[in-house]
Amino acid sequence: MTPLPNRPGEFEIIARYFAPLAGEGSFNLKDDAALVDVPEGRQLVVTQDAIAESVHFFPDDSPSLVARKALRVNLSDLAAKGATPYAFSLSLGLGQDWDETWVERFASGLRQDCEKFEISLIGGDTFSTDRGFVISITALGHVETKNYVSRLGAKPGDNLYVTGTIGDGALGLLARQELLDLSHADLAALTTRYLLPEPRIEAIDLVRDHASASIDVSDGLLADAAKLAFASDCKIEIDLSNVPFSAVCQKAIGREPRYLQTAVTGGDDYELLLAIPEDLSPAWDARVDKLSFSVTRIGKVVKGEGATFVDRNGAEISFDKTGYDHLSQGT
Amino acid sequence: MTPLPNRPGEFEIIARYFAPLAGEGSFNLKDDAALVDVPEGRQLVVTQDAIAESVHFFPDDSPSLVARKALRVNLSDLAAKGATPYAFSLSLGLGQDWDETWVERFASGLRQDCEKFEISLIGGDTFSTDRGFVISITALGHVETKNYVSRLGAKPGDNLYVTGTIGDGALGLLARQELLDLSHADLAALTTRYLLPEPRIEAIDLVRDHASASIDVSDGLLADAAKLAFASDCKIEIDLSNVPFSAVCQKAIGREPRYLQTAVTGGDDYELLLAIPEDLSPAWDARVDKLSFSVTRIGKVVKGEGATFVDRNGAEISFDKTGYDHLSQGT
Repeated sequence: MTPLPNRPGEFEIIARYFAPLAGEGSFNLKDDAALVDVPEGRQLVVTQDAIAESVHFFPDDSPSLVARKALRVNLSDLAAKGATPYAFSLSLGLGQDWDETWVERFASGLRQDCEKFEISLIGGDTFSTDRGFVISITALGHVETKNYVSRLGAKPGDNLYVTGTIGDGALGLLARQELLDLSHADLAALTTRYLLPEPRIEAIDLVRDHASASIDVSDGLLADAAKLAFASDCKIEIDLSNVPFSAVCQKAIGREPRYLQTAVTGGDDYELLLAIPEDLSPAWDARVDKLSFSVTRIGKVVKGEGATFVDRNGAEISFDKTGYDHLSQGT
Repeated sequence: MTPLPNRPGEFEIIARYFAPLAGEGSFNLKDDAALVDVPEGRQLVVTQDAIAESVHFFPDDSPSLVARKALRVNLSDLAAKGATPYAFSLSLGLGQDWDETWVERFASGLRQDCEKFEISLIGGDTFSTDRGFVISITALGHVETKNYVSRLGAKPGDNLYVTGTIGDGALGLLARQELLDLSHADLAALTTRYLLPEPRIEAIDLVRDHASASIDVSDGLLADAAKLAFASDCKIEIDLSNVPFSAVCQKAIGREPRYLQTAVTGGDDYELLLAIPEDLSPAWDARVDKLSFSVTRIGKVVKGEGATFVDRNGAEISFDKTGYDHLSQGT
């Protein structure tokens, strides 16, 4: 006989695992809502993204990593806006198989990232879905008044940059599914990139000071470039030969050329894609050199619409898949 | 053969159905986040509550009512805090059976309540759960600085009041399940109370001006009174004979006395439970008379801990069930 899972009530779960993560304005999670003071001269930035079992993570992923990914995908959105993260609210839908150990590990991962990113929990709710796990986080940040960086401000002539490397998220998903023929160490590196994205918090000040428009690359480089282009009413051309790939990603593409398309159209990179006006580019270049990750110029904003890859001669390169749609079946 | 459901992509869904609900700071839902200005002299209030298919609503409930309930349970939390609602973020997890008509009806219900409550959509995300529907809303409101009403401020000597009537939500759930022997009209009245709660927005100014502590009754009168007592470090005594029931609820209890326990411990009422200091009670009584719903004095805050029902002589009355726990199996 399978023993019944150990399931404390909602009150105990909150008191044991989530109240220790609670910050200012949260009333130690004893209230219906949280009270937030926005510092003078700053504006509040709000973003909400959910991740669901079997869609954004696997049923057997570590609960600790699930928690951290749920938080990080939201921090990545704040970073793209030039906003400093400071608090979040958590709506935790526990799947039918939950037990206290799952919650304990989930909260432990959340605590790690609360400390790492200096952010605290201010509220939310916990419920049983009777199906899969669903975690919806609303992250709050703030930005100096009028310094918010939207997707809407790119102008023809701006240079296009991307942080870090592209494709590790999508290939990491394949690695997680054991579909890649790589060494154990390479598979582990890619899998980690998929399971635990690295929001580019370190770039926030630079984004705020220099970018005319910005988006985080969560649904694929090409698809997110197209969103930026659409919101800014212009066209984006990405020089495919300049797109930065990690050594492991290059190795995978070298063995299997079709992974080039996977890398540049797949999701889960959580890098920043930024339009930098030409006159600000020298100052930008000087500052990005000091970051702990690379920042690469990959293209231009031009007149027109949509986003395309081009080769070194400016000729268009097209792929038969453009990106990840959250509502399409499968990726 | 079953035809494939009609499923536009995420981009089309947002543009067609949600962008028309978008308000200030939302960038017409074209950005990763929203920008929120909190009026000077006011503080931001944030609350997040989710509802999930087969847990908080039935698979065949009207999508329009599902949307409105998802919003209203959050507005009820804001009302309890004396906070004026002004915007919300929506995380919409579409179940495996979704099609465009479902989304259209969902958005149509949301639009109705956006207009009714003068609130706009500022962001969120849409995704496919591959299982049931899950809707997590984060509502934002604001309150004059230092006028926020928490659960923590009740003092021995305060009078305890409740808005509207208690038990219609829990009996409405039974009515929705066709488990009650009542007339068609009575069943419809109760079902409506369950499907479409009425957040007590009209009472916000009064709550803010008079209440020492407040909570919305979502998990059952007794359970929520106990939460208020716990947060305020005192005890709450509710005179059972004073608890207000609707005529239909009284009829149901008259026919089946065990429904008294259902009414006072069941969830989904979304009324406000308020502690009003004795010296403010006369002013409070005068103002509540002008509301479109009843407000009834049902008990006292005293020294001690927990919440109990008492009879007219002050003797305790206990029930074998105390309230709805979001993590327990079944209600």
